[in-house]
Amino acid sequence: MSPMPLSPHPDRLLPADPGVRDIARELYAAVKDLPIISPHGHVPVEWLAEDTPFTDPTTLLLTPDHYTNRMLHSAGGVDLADLGVPVGTPLSEERSRAAFRLLCENWRYLRGTPVQFWFESEFHDVFGVTVRPSAETADQIYDQIADCLTRPEFTPRALYRRFGIEALATTDDPCSDLASHTALAADPEWDGRVVPTFRPDAYLEPARPAWRQLTAALADAADVDITDYASHVEAMRVRRQFFKDRGAVSTDHSHADAGTARLSDAEAERLFQEALAGAISPADGDRLRRHMINDQARLACDDGLVMTLHPAVARNHDSDAQRRFGADVGGDVPHAVEFTRALQPMLDAYGNAEGFHLVVFTMDETVFSRELAPLAGWYRGVYVGAPWWFIDEPDAIMRYRRSVTGYAGFAKTSGFIDDTRAFCSIPARHDVSRRVDSAFLASLVAEHRLAMDEALETAVDLVSTQPRKVFKL
Amino acid sequence: MSPMPLSPHPDRLLPADPGVRDIARELYAAVKDLPIISPHGHVPVEWLAEDTPFTDPTTLLLTPDHYTNRMLHSAGGVDLADLGVPVGTPLSEERSRAAFRLLCENWRYLRGTPVQFWFESEFHDVFGVTVRPSAETADQIYDQIADCLTRPEFTPRALYRRFGIEALATTDDPCSDLASHTALAADPEWDGRVVPTFRPDAYLEPARPAWRQLTAALADAADVDITDYASHVEAMRVRRQFFKDRGAVSTDHSHADAGTARLSDAEAERLFQEALAGAISPADGDRLRRHMINDQARLACDDGLVMTLHPAVARNHDSDAQRRFGADVGGDVPHAVEFTRALQPMLDAYGNAEGFHLVVFTMDETVFSRELAPLAGWYRGVYVGAPWWFIDEPDAIMRYRRSVTGYAGFAKTSGFIDDTRAFCSIPARHDVSRRVDSAFLASLVAEHRLAMDEALETAVDLVSTQPRKVFKL
Amino acid sequence: MSPMPLSPHPDRLLPADPGVRDIARELYAAVKDLPIISPHGHVPVEWLAEDTPFTDPTTLLLTPDHYTNRMLHSAGGVDLADLGVPVGTPLSEERSRAAFRLLCENWRYLRGTPVQFWFESEFHDVFGVTVRPSAETADQIYDQIADCLTRPEFTPRALYRRFGIEALATTDDPCSDLASHTALAADPEWDGRVVPTFRPDAYLEPARPAWRQLTAALADAADVDITDYASHVEAMRVRRQFFKDRGAVSTDHSHADAGTARLSDAEAERLFQEALAGAISPADGDRLRRHMINDQARLACDDGLVMTLHPAVARNHDSDAQRRFGADVGGDVPHAVEFTRALQPMLDAYGNAEGFHLVVFTMDETVFSRELAPLAGWYRGVYVGAPWWFIDEPDAIMRYRRSVTGYAGFAKTSGFIDDTRAFCSIPARHDVSRRVDSAFLASLVAEHRLAMDEALETAVDLVSTQPRKVFKL
Repeated sequence: MSPMPLSPHPDRLLPADPGVRDIARELYAAVKDLPIISPHGHVPVEWLAEDTPFTDPTTLLLTPDHYTNRMLHSAGGVDLADLGVPVGTPLSEERSRAAFRLLCENWRYLRGTPVQFWFESEFHDVFGVTVRPSAETADQIYDQIADCLTRPEFTPRALYRRFGIEALATTDDPCSDLASHTALAADPEWDGRVVPTFRPDAYLEPARPAWRQLTAALADAADVDITDYASHVEAMRVRRQFFKDRGAVSTDHSHADAGTARLSDAEAERLFQEALAGAISPADGDRLRRHMINDQARLACDDGLVMTLHPAVARNHDSDAQRRFGADVGGDVPHAVEFTRALQPMLDAYGNAEGFHLVVFTMDETVFSRELAPLAGWYRGVYVGAPWWFIDEPDAIMRYRRSVTGYAGFAKTSGFIDDTRAFCSIPARHDVSRRVDSAFLASLVAEHRLAMDEALETAVDLVSTQPRKVFKL
Repeated sequence: MSPMPLSPHPDRLLPADPGVRDIARELYAAVKDLPIISPHGHVPVEWLAEDTPFTDPTTLLLTPDHYTNRMLHSAGGVDLADLGVPVGTPLSEERSRAAFRLLCENWRYLRGTPVQFWFESEFHDVFGVTVRPSAETADQIYDQIADCLTRPEFTPRALYRRFGIEALATTDDPCSDLASHTALAADPEWDGRVVPTFRPDAYLEPARPAWRQLTAALADAADVDITDYASHVEAMRVRRQFFKDRGAVSTDHSHADAGTARLSDAEAERLFQEALAGAISPADGDRLRRHMINDQARLACDDGLVMTLHPAVARNHDSDAQRRFGADVGGDVPHAVEFTRALQPMLDAYGNAEGFHLVVFTMDETVFSRELAPLAGWYRGVYVGAPWWFIDEPDAIMRYRRSVTGYAGFAKTSGFIDDTRAFCSIPARHDVSRRVDSAFLASLVAEHRLAMDEALETAVDLVSTQPRKVFKL
Repeated sequence: MSPMPLSPHPDRLLPADPGVRDIARELYAAVKDLPIISPHGHVPVEWLAEDTPFTDPTTLLLTPDHYTNRMLHSAGGVDLADLGVPVGTPLSEERSRAAFRLLCENWRYLRGTPVQFWFESEFHDVFGVTVRPSAETADQIYDQIADCLTRPEFTPRALYRRFGIEALATTDDPCSDLASHTALAADPEWDGRVVPTFRPDAYLEPARPAWRQLTAALADAADVDITDYASHVEAMRVRRQFFKDRGAVSTDHSHADAGTARLSDAEAERLFQEALAGAISPADGDRLRRHMINDQARLACDDGLVMTLHPAVARNHDSDAQRRFGADVGGDVPHAVEFTRALQPMLDAYGNAEGFHLVVFTMDETVFSRELAPLAGWYRGVYVGAPWWFIDEPDAIMRYRRSVTGYAGFAKTSGFIDDTRAFCSIPARHDVSRRVDSAFLASLVAEHRLAMDEALETAVDLVSTQPRKVFKL
């Protein structure tokens, strides 16, 4: 039997109704080729700084993509080790090919998922693949991609240009010297824009075992003697400024909850000293962390870095997977989150402050209409973040627009973020968002809720004006 | 450039699919001109009692509409003071015009929101505006509306008639003498129906600072010496009856949660005495409040007033706005709510009692299929309230029907409430509901889930039979 | 006036858009006549074992169907006693006819509900009714069905065959001798498959008043002296094996929460001894129950029985109804549920174990995208159960697919369960699911998210491969 073709339809994800589709096509045509702005993600800056050719299809496309890994693990029964996990494991050509074959053999399990969409787009649009992945076609596709990777138009920088990326943010440790960022920015051959992001989570959880060691490292990096709460804030200020001086536009925060309640200065100091002594309880660690987050907002008002929040994921749910493969591969699972009361102390203080931007991301869709749209619909600094991680897929993106637009409109939404380390999936991910937003806007036009000129302007705003404004890019 | 036209499409909000739209059109035609029944809202009765012409477009359309104010504040960066907030601020013609200009200049931020729909309908259908609001057209539209307001066909009563309102409820303090209601009802020129609503929230929160003063006022108004819990209930009974005698059909309740747990008589008395002494704790204040709410249901079984619940909003989230502009302008934000267990004590006692009607409103959409439809699908007295406040918009109304109908059908839903103080938006708000319900019913017909005759009868029921039955109007 | 016809449309529940409907029709055609696999339900095995003709329409169709009873109670004001509740009440022909008339008179209250769909299908497809139920047609329909029931092609076994049922699970007490199952299986005339299900809820709630008595019965049934925690587990093991030997493929668990946290062995023993002494507190009863559930998973890894979870319903919400009619007729109402943290201890231990299958059902739709799809998208043994009970209707089934598919795909979903004791509604219930799944798949094809061959294969998988695999049938 000859293999099934792979030929992604130009209208995919656009509404089925012929009249609405015509409108959606026109809207999509206006945005499909606009530059990609990616203000939150995990692509290693080294790829672009060093511009070393990618070694093989698996290492590039499969190993770092935990979306795909999860599906192959749960539905296909695949062992993550066979996919090259953890990232950095050296893979022989044979093992790389075998891993890639596992993807193709289990292709049916991806049906209806965004992973299928992304791969179809990548395979077809980036690498010219024209057959559907399957046990029969695995080697052929592997060879075709491997061959591409040897060519100059597939180096990281060549792809960056080809993808039409205008700005790309990485995620970085506060103590990082950002050497690769500096080198890249200084490279006369380089005309792109890659900016670091300040991600201080581990430094703001004082009850964690590693916190004292991290605090020592922070003191070193900031050249600040951290002896009390104020000096910890000062060290944070110094490192934020260091990041900002190297191009950072935002800080990123992910904790178990979205709490921002302040303590009295005296209590904060008392808890901080307990933490320095390694004697703080988990509950007090959470309380101090919320106070610290509140102070990150104060720092943000001063230095202008945009604050992004990604809370409420049970990390490393599967401890055996964590032991074998490290953090963030252990089946992270979202849980419910509360924002209305949790964010109140911080927003009451800074929510309307000049220049303060807070972008809130969630995987708990229930908060879109109940909490986030009303918050963003009142506070000037609050923006509703695009659907994130497990809800970064067409149906959820549509639900997001249908839940948020009523009371936050379009101007208080963040624009799309891809949040990925799967570099080659970036265009496909942004494309999904553009298609679904076009479909949503087309439905508004078709139902006479919006005029076509308004919809066209809005479509462009969502991929262009909006992320630039929200992330100060 | 000549201004863009404003010409709301007759089919707006109806489904895009041509076949389904034809069905929806037929359903909508059967209900679009039916009288408006508005059993919960905030229009001042004085407007109709005194029938004084409205002074200016801003005071009428913009200042009292916190939906619009919020959007201009958050997305447009507008200061509420510049919109005439708080209500009652005297506005010069210059300031009124400037405020109206702010609305028009920031028009783009309303795209896709119900505020846009309401204004387009009001401007076009009520005032004959035919250009889209913008910086360029602001003065022209302002002048046109201001001119209308000088004419006799734009007085409050003239508009009441023109809007086809059959009954309109206000929201009133339990101690109000309802003088304007009495005067209006006695006016031989008046043939409409405006009824008061008993809203005792502040009198049922014993730990609030003002509670003792309110209780004294309640004692005066009811002519009951409030010395113990029983006399407090008696004072409530007296005032409820006073309201009922002046036309009231319902009582309205909005607290942080929906709790109805009873205390023992002895404990209720003990807490009540603490409250009278100004010594009750916030937690005990909540417990006593839940007991009091439970007793409101008992009173309702006796006097037949319909009980409506609107819980779970964090009031005055932004304390600076509250300081500057007063209560209810401080960025109220909904939060999650629980009904299944909270309402159990009250429903177990009265849920199937003859004549007891409880209408539950929420902004937490998660409870529609999970809690409210099952509750209304069992207890005879429970009705699922229409989407309220932040979810009073087309997509949420559609989600409501799709979540509630399965297990509560249509007969256990409340009919639409507009809950507004923006008088001129009332027809547009009810129109949205009629259009979306027509769209929903049309989809059922198109998918052969309902016959056309059933859908037509249901469409009429929803705007006519249902609110009359549920609110005993 | 001549009665309205009853003629269910062949395309009902398929999408309205003509192009999408064509696709859906083709998909539906491929599955509509496939055998019914019903791995969770409540039909009495005695019906099939004894094959006694059904006595009358009410006892067969109305009395045991609490979906219908609730609607007639809440919207129609019907007393459940007039419907023959509780099940087993002897009904005269006159009372049976009167009850059936109540259904027909209140027919309008079922509009838009799945109950309407099920009855229309049953009446038309099973009994050949061609007029719409109403006060006028009640007796005619009653007579027609009553006449059918006297005929040999309407005995339980005849209907089982006509319905195309391939396998049907009942729900059984752990101490049951399963005599009717054994008799049925041994009957040479019988070529169907009815399997018992092990449902130990009451035996795993040690703080309940009846628990000690149940434990004594369990000890008897298992022939194990239950003196400590270990012997209780052993008794469970013995009874599970007894069930498995008689065809059981799964165990079913329904508690207030989904907790699975383990205690230390010492604490489990201490609490168990308190329970044996009748002295365990409700809170400790819950803790011990969660430990016991965790051990049910361990037993499942050994004996291979599939574990199904149906948590989070407030049982017998209306205590008066419970007093009058018994358990499960007292207006059960769902409440919110949490899975991510609750299931972690159990999944961390067994979630990827060979042969362990956990199917999680819920009426809290918020967990589909937030918790269940991510859990099923990681753990090999976890499957997302089909919408259950109050959300077992077309719109909720569609929302389920749209919420779950993104990150769990199709292969990690359970397939449909009917969970009913209304035997004649089984084909209609499965038909709803097949139609809605066809509609969902058709939308994916129409939006070019799935190729037609993939959709066709998936449609068949969902009613055939998937339930067989998940339930090991």
